[in-house]
Amino acid sequence: MDRRNPYRTHNAGDLRKENVGETARLAGWVHRRRDHGGLIFIDLRDRWGITQVTFDPEREDIFSTAEKLRPEWSISVEGEVTARPPGNENPDLPTGHIEVRATDLRVLNTSETPPFEIERDRPVDETLRLKYRYLDLRREKMRDTILFRHRVVKHIRDFLDAREFVEIETPLLTASTPEGARDYLVPARLYPGQFYALPQSPQQFKQLLMVAGFERYFQIARALRDEDQRGDRQPEHTQLDMELSYTTQDEVLGLVEELFTGIVEGLTDKTIGQKPFPRLTYAEAMDRFGSDKPDIRFGLELRDVSEIAATSGFKVFSGAVESGGSVRGIAVGGLGDLSRGKIEGEITDVAKTGGARGLAFMKAEADGLTGPIAKFFSDEEQASLREALGARQGDYLFFVADKDPVVFESLGRLRLHFRDRLGLADDDVLGLCWVTDFPLFEWNEDEGRVEPMHHMFTMPREEDLGLLETEPLKVIGQLYDLVANGTELASGSIRIHRPDIQQRVFDVIGIDSEEAERRFGAMLTAFRYGAPPHGGIAPGIDRLIMLLRDQPNIREVMAFPKTQAARDEMMDAPGPVSEDQLKELHIALRRRPEGPKGSDPASRPSEGNN
Amino acid sequence: MDRRNPYRTHNAGDLRKENVGETARLAGWVHRRRDHGGLIFIDLRDRWGITQVTFDPEREDIFSTAEKLRPEWSISVEGEVTARPPGNENPDLPTGHIEVRATDLRVLNTSETPPFEIERDRPVDETLRLKYRYLDLRREKMRDTILFRHRVVKHIRDFLDAREFVEIETPLLTASTPEGARDYLVPARLYPGQFYALPQSPQQFKQLLMVAGFERYFQIARALRDEDQRGDRQPEHTQLDMELSYTTQDEVLGLVEELFTGIVEGLTDKTIGQKPFPRLTYAEAMDRFGSDKPDIRFGLELRDVSEIAATSGFKVFSGAVESGGSVRGIAVGGLGDLSRGKIEGEITDVAKTGGARGLAFMKAEADGLTGPIAKFFSDEEQASLREALGARQGDYLFFVADKDPVVFESLGRLRLHFRDRLGLADDDVLGLCWVTDFPLFEWNEDEGRVEPMHHMFTMPREEDLGLLETEPLKVIGQLYDLVANGTELASGSIRIHRPDIQQRVFDVIGIDSEEAERRFGAMLTAFRYGAPPHGGIAPGIDRLIMLLRDQPNIREVMAFPKTQAARDEMMDAPGPVSEDQLKELHIALRRRPEGPKGSDPASRPSEGNN
Repeated sequence: MDRRNPYRTHNAGDLRKENVGETARLAGWVHRRRDHGGLIFIDLRDRWGITQVTFDPEREDIFSTAEKLRPEWSISVEGEVTARPPGNENPDLPTGHIEVRATDLRVLNTSETPPFEIERDRPVDETLRLKYRYLDLRREKMRDTILFRHRVVKHIRDFLDAREFVEIETPLLTASTPEGARDYLVPARLYPGQFYALPQSPQQFKQLLMVAGFERYFQIARALRDEDQRGDRQPEHTQLDMELSYTTQDEVLGLVEELFTGIVEGLTDKTIGQKPFPRLTYAEAMDRFGSDKPDIRFGLELRDVSEIAATSGFKVFSGAVESGGSVRGIAVGGLGDLSRGKIEGEITDVAKTGGARGLAFMKAEADGLTGPIAKFFSDEEQASLREALGARQGDYLFFVADKDPVVFESLGRLRLHFRDRLGLADDDVLGLCWVTDFPLFEWNEDEGRVEPMHHMFTMPREEDLGLLETEPLKVIGQLYDLVANGTELASGSIRIHRPDIQQRVFDVIGIDSEEAERRFGAMLTAFRYGAPPHGGIAPGIDRLIMLLRDQPNIREVMAFPKTQAARDEMMDAPGPVSEDQLKELHIALRRRPEGPKGSDPASRPSEGNN
Repeated sequence: MDRRNPYRTHNAGDLRKENVGETARLAGWVHRRRDHGGLIFIDLRDRWGITQVTFDPEREDIFSTAEKLRPEWSISVEGEVTARPPGNENPDLPTGHIEVRATDLRVLNTSETPPFEIERDRPVDETLRLKYRYLDLRREKMRDTILFRHRVVKHIRDFLDAREFVEIETPLLTASTPEGARDYLVPARLYPGQFYALPQSPQQFKQLLMVAGFERYFQIARALRDEDQRGDRQPEHTQLDMELSYTTQDEVLGLVEELFTGIVEGLTDKTIGQKPFPRLTYAEAMDRFGSDKPDIRFGLELRDVSEIAATSGFKVFSGAVESGGSVRGIAVGGLGDLSRGKIEGEITDVAKTGGARGLAFMKAEADGLTGPIAKFFSDEEQASLREALGARQGDYLFFVADKDPVVFESLGRLRLHFRDRLGLADDDVLGLCWVTDFPLFEWNEDEGRVEPMHHMFTMPREEDLGLLETEPLKVIGQLYDLVANGTELASGSIRIHRPDIQQRVFDVIGIDSEEAERRFGAMLTAFRYGAPPHGGIAPGIDRLIMLLRDQPNIREVMAFPKTQAARDEMMDAPGPVSEDQLKELHIALRRRPEGPKGSDPASRPSEGNN
């Protein structure tokens, strides 16, 4: 704080017993007011804390003004720092041992009654919060989140700067990107019929910066996607974009691990489940957790019982294995006695959201497995199943028999369901892990073609280069995701830096050299001039803050979010523009087929319609 | 550097005499190649430096590969660090005492011959540089500028963070702003006929963050304006946006002064002309320098000779004073003998660009003033003029007689003309100064009305509040500019925080409460809830880097600038989009009146047309 200031000498979190006897001036907002024993007590709030200020009727000059004070008025107060009378201390407040006895009071601004309470953390309608975001941000929780976000981002910048990363700004007005999501477009006034696109990510620019020789680049970058809105999406989000040259997957993982460890251990009370972060291949993650975003904080790992199932008399099981699928299961303890209705209803429904047609279950009792399907298995088979799943007495055994993807997805979801139901995961622990060795391509069933699993600039594993043309679906890419508690925090890869390999990958996914040139011309040309081996990763900042602050919703970690319908209720955006503006941009509004001619362009759908 | 890396153990700026005898691996680009005495010498370049690598034909395994090396190939080399033979050291290079004798060579990527030389700083056609920006950025000067920019911005962030400023991101998709320049618009897919606007500055958001109680906010923010392009403009630029609550002009100026002093003294070889930075009122700056962006590194200050002129027999002078104008002049030494043609041509032309109809001049000789108008002045008047201008023998005296604004503008330009002509200003000195006390309003001659000189959210001086309705043009605003060497680096103000004062200012400039509500509704509503006194400033980052790196052009300080015609030649943006995309956005292209129906929307004007 600058100490020479007509509004304050200290901030409202500063004063302690040691200051007793001093004269102090504070500025801030009336947080609470209480009248007691003829005195007026004000809790004065600023960004740094709360200090109790008392007004005595004997100070006639200011008492009448103090009587007018209401919550959220902005004031500046001078007075003597005094020890609170014994018994009146507030140990919960750093300033709780003192109070300031006012000798001067300046009202800097009055306040109408806010549409919701600032001083208490009670649920408030979100539309109201977003419309009055500047008041919502005064509330302790929001304020602390935004301050925390600043500290995290500062930590990231310091960390990377110390390791010789250079932050470079890339353009917001750029060309349409190939990432697949919908672009936000900006009509170009100087180029009739042409448009800029806002960046979905600086992917091409960061690779070009590697070609440019910066070697270690990062940017806290805004990324914009015009997606259909879901709970945790926003038109704009922020990512740490980082890229290195002459690097390897190991180096990138090591760096990011060090960065995230520093953030968690330096700035939060959470602990990291395992250090170094476990590294799972994609295959292992699916196999053990049924997910490429595994929550590794708890067990309930999937077990493959296909071998036992194949030869069993239970047709559902043996049939699944015969048709190339698998049978896997988990053993769950602590469920007590579940009614058959509950299992076949609620729990089976969870498995069905993952695509399973049904959920087989048994219970491990002292004398064997019980349940409707137990009869299909011999004692020996029952013992094998029980052993395979590591089931203890009293555990329920749940099985899904289907194609592998369905088995994984269904049991993966079931696993998370029991996590929540049984409280298996510690909220104060971050189960951080790496998932690596993703297949480079996946099969698009609908379109009957091979497509990139992540993006088309990823380098295949050296040893798989020969498979590109022959068995592309077997090619493993140098891809890696950072996962925490079942959420993907970051995704990255070692990129292709040689034009010949890039073209081979394009060929696999059916992009001929003409299309490649049209879509990625700058990058392909750049690769012809000594592009170095390079790779990077892009952790999402919003998602990181959500995780570290236990916030389920992205709107809780941004200062000025849009609604789920992509609207800014406070600034009232988007809005209509003038015909002159449209003319300058060489565009016209389309008539809306559903409405009458010239219907009001300013009408807007309600949130529910989107 | 991470030392465990298959590509390198050291960077190319690392190795010294102390490393002789060690084995080192380097990665980077072939900067230069020389073949001499049977050996091949490669200058290997990376981001950190250059190291000489030698290939000996006796190492047959790698020599044949080394023979293929060409500039800009990307390679990794291992070898023994060896002292260079006596006489072959290069003292200009930190690594100039050693060389690496290659024992292993891996070609990571080849390179076509670049379209211009990377290793030499020769002029290159700018269009070519922008098209191949990733190669242009490999050149030492561009690379160093971008690295310098990173260091400056990092310094700013560290400085502000240490002073409890919090960086908060404000939205890119927002409502149309009132700043006056043209907005970039983004059609809203979910709201037919409606548009977001990209921010021209976060002005309203930063004020709302003050209402929200953050007290000390900053952001390295992107600002976008769809202006007609001039030499030093770009569609996007970057500013340090900062705002404080419970603050004063003095505090803001002191903070920014400390910040800029740290940048200049910590990161550059330049010196600051005067500390603390001189503070000039607007009136004083005009009076002394004829400009509100004065270059204070040299004298040639303007002198008012209206009093002498008023009673002189020279009608041009006395007439100007009579009709409410003034006569001012400067005395310029070191010009030697100028022909009358030169003065009445070249030099008078400079004055005319400032609006003057003519330029009066005399020369101070031993026996009095000479020149065509000398005869109009008595000996006494000549002596007075000479004294008023502080002219020494041999000086030329130049006068402009006109309305004040014309006198200031003309003599101000003349002053800069002589600065450049006579080399009066030291390029290594930053003449930083503050200009304060700007009038709040100015008279718009064309529209016959009062308008805000800076913006309409500026707080009048306390003592001038009473003049708002009666003599608005006399009201001084709490406005301040930071100026360096004749360039405005930053502009700021203490803002209005009370709705009643804001409405009075709106009334002066003819904005009624309905229009105010429509244009600034969120802010005016926010002000009703205890908005604190606040103010801030917004230094332009690009301009600062230009100044510190002696770059006349903004494109030299951005990694990926657009052309003067707002085009990205590398990414080929803007470009056409599909009819489907337009449909989704509820817009259509207008037919271009000048072209045939359905003319190619992708055709683009050449740069010269814009």
